[in-house]
Amino acid sequence: MPYVRIEMLAGRSEDQKAEIAKAVTEAMVTHGKATPGSVFVVFQDVPASDWAVAGTLMSRRETKPG
Amino acid sequence: MPYVRIEMLAGRSEDQKAEIAKAVTEAMVTHGKATPGSVFVVFQDVPASDWAVAGTLMSRRETKPG
Amino acid sequence: MPYVRIEMLAGRSEDQKAEIAKAVTEAMVTHGKATPGSVFVVFQDVPASDWAVAGTLMSRRETKPG
Amino acid sequence: MPYVRIEMLAGRSEDQKAEIAKAVTEAMVTHGKATPGSVFVVFQDVPASDWAVAGTLMSRRETKPG
Amino acid sequence: MPYVRIEMLAGRSEDQKAEIAKAVTEAMVTHGKATPGSVFVVFQDVPASDWAVAGTLMSRRETKPG
Amino acid sequence: MPYVRIEMLAGRSEDQKAEIAKAVTEAMVTHGKATPGSVFVVFQDVPASDWAVAGTLMSRRETKPG
Repeated sequence: MPYVRIEMLAGRSEDQKAEIAKAVTEAMVTHGKATPGSVFVVFQDVPASDWAVAGTLMSRRETKPG
Repeated sequence: MPYVRIEMLAGRSEDQKAEIAKAVTEAMVTHGKATPGSVFVVFQDVPASDWAVAGTLMSRRETKPG
Repeated sequence: MPYVRIEMLAGRSEDQKAEIAKAVTEAMVTHGKATPGSVFVVFQDVPASDWAVAGTLMSRRETKPG
Repeated sequence: MPYVRIEMLAGRSEDQKAEIAKAVTEAMVTHGKATPGSVFVVFQDVPASDWAVAGTLMSRRETKPG
Repeated sequence: MPYVRIEMLAGRSEDQKAEIAKAVTEAMVTHGKATPGSVFVVFQDVPASDWAVAGTLMSRRETKPG
Repeated sequence: MPYVRIEMLAGRSEDQKAEIAKAVTEAMVTHGKATPGSVFVVFQDVPASDWAVAGTLMSRRETKPG
C-alpha cells in the first residue's frame, strides 16, 4: 500500500524510470516490510520552467543541478 | 475548503471527469459537511509509463488494472 | 489504481471518513471504470493553523468556511 | 529545504512563474528563516478540464475564477 | 483558485506561518493575477525524522539546513 | 533535485525510514543520474483510519495489507 511519488526534472527515459521503480519498490519491500504488489510509484516529470531553486527557475539558470 | 486530488491513468474523458467531480463533491457535502462551493477537485492524468505497481511500469505490463 | 488524496480541516470523525471513502470509491467505479480494489483514498487532516484562505490562517478568521 | 508546490490553472507565462518563485522564496527566507538555496518551488499547470469547483469543471463554467 | 502546499521542517510558529501565508498570497495576486479569496495555502510540518537529504534523515545529521 | 514523497501506513520505525531513504536515494543516483545531495525524501505516516482501499478504511478491515 505504500504510495511513492517521484518528481524530477523531465528528461529521464522510460528505461530509467523502470529501473528506479524497480529499485524503489525493492527498498519498500526489503526495509519497509511492504508486499511488492502493494507498492505504487508515480512519476511526475517537471519541466525546467516549472522548477525553481533559490528563487530562480531551472530554465533560467546557467548550470542545472540533477 | 476540502481539496481533493485524483491521480489516475490517463484515458478518462472530460465527461467522465465531470461526473466524478460531481459525485465526489456531493460526497464531501453529504458526509463531510462541506459547502459545495468550498470543494476543489484536481485531476492528474498519469501516463502508463509514469505509474508502476509491484515494481513494473504499467506501460510494460501485459494486463493493465483499472 | 486511482489514488485519491483528500485534504480537509481536521474535525471529521472516522465515521464520516468511512462514508466519504465509500462514496468516493463508488464514484471512481461508476464513472471512472475503476475496479473497487484498485481505488486508494488517503485523508489528511489539516489543522486550522495550517490552512490559509485569502492570506489568512483559518485559525485567525472569525468565521470558518467548511 | 522547504518544498513549495503551486497548482494553478494553466495560462501563466514563464515570466509570471519566475516572479512568483522569487517572491515565494523571499517569503520563506524572510518569515520562515530558510536559506535561499534550500527553497524548492514546483509549479503544476492544471488544465481547466482537470479542475472542478463546486462540482463543476472549470472548462464547463461560464465565468472562470482566478 | 491557486493551491499552494508548503512542506517544511516542523518548528515554525503560527505567527511565522501567518506571515508566510500572507506573503505567498500577495505573490500569487501580484504576479499570478489571482484574486485573493481564490488562493489556498496549506502547510505541512515535517518532523526531522521524516525528511532526508542525500540519503540521510535530518534527525541523524549533525547540522540541519533550513 | 528529485523530490520523493513516501506515504505509508504509520508503524515503520525511524531505522526503517533511514534504510528506505538511503536505498531510494541510491536508486535515484544510480538510475536517475541525480547527485546525492539533490535528492529529497519526505515520509508521511498515514494512520489506518485515514487510508481506505476498495472503499473501506484500513482501520475497519480485518486483514491489513502492507
